[in-house]
Amino acid sequence: MKHTISVIVENHPGVLNKVAGLFARRGFNIDSLAVGTTENPNLSRMTIVVEGDDQVLEQIQKQLYKLINVLKVFDLPPEKSIDRELILVKVATNNKNRTEITELVDLFNSKIVDVTNDSVTIEAVGESEKIAGFIKMLEKFGIKEMVQTGKIALLKGSENK
Amino acid sequence: MKHTISVIVENHPGVLNKVAGLFARRGFNIDSLAVGTTENPNLSRMTIVVEGDDQVLEQIQKQLYKLINVLKVFDLPPEKSIDRELILVKVATNNKNRTEITELVDLFNSKIVDVTNDSVTIEAVGESEKIAGFIKMLEKFGIKEMVQTGKIALLKGSENK
Repeated sequence: MKHTISVIVENHPGVLNKVAGLFARRGFNIDSLAVGTTENPNLSRMTIVVEGDDQVLEQIQKQLYKLINVLKVFDLPPEKSIDRELILVKVATNNKNRTEITELVDLFNSKIVDVTNDSVTIEAVGESEKIAGFIKMLEKFGIKEMVQTGKIALLKGSENK
Repeated sequence: MKHTISVIVENHPGVLNKVAGLFARRGFNIDSLAVGTTENPNLSRMTIVVEGDDQVLEQIQKQLYKLINVLKVFDLPPEKSIDRELILVKVATNNKNRTEITELVDLFNSKIVDVTNDSVTIEAVGESEKIAGFIKMLEKFGIKEMVQTGKIALLKGSENK
């Protein structure tokens, strides 16, 4: 089972290292990771997707709280949160398939951000499943290159942690 | 000066730890980090934004290549690449400012993805500067919570590395 957790940390060189080290030592496998600034410039927020049951999740939370510079750790259950990820993907094109690719881009509410004679680069945002489906559809044209952010998530509603 | 580098690594538990450890030990300050899958399921791609001059960049590249599981390291100069980042931001609302916020969301080509009586959650994608500008505009309404992916980037044109 996959869990998405948010870790609020102080902006301090080495804190990423401590968090990554903890996951490595304990053998917790990180599926994706996104690190960015928050509403408070002194704090960063890591969104980590990790594979494991509820016990593993509890372990991770406990261990993270032991680290200096870690201020808050919380789980974001899928039914209670909004999650998104972003990809840039460069797809091979030719005169025959360009229209089909453009239609697919429209269908997935995505965007062509660069064009050459033999490729297009597409920007797409969505929930993980939507993005995975989109990539699958693009594979038949030939994916030349792809880069993906980790997943980010916020709790639904007006709550904040 | 900020540099954006791509690091292609084998999907191996502990590789993030090695990379983060290298940056910490050498005192290279990571500005943002995004880790995601690539067109090859055995490989992950890290996009790292790091502060430093050309010499620092060269040092980082050399050191990264020394790590096992690191296959490729390359710089993405801003003029030659397409870069994007994604944010989810929860903003306080009331009856008076809702229209103004909605107009701003349209202006920035962003999207409202959740609404409550006293808040809206907005999804926005763009280059770092655009996102920073958008956040600044939203600050006056009161940002309740925010999460940001690191920057991701691909080379323009049909080239791939």
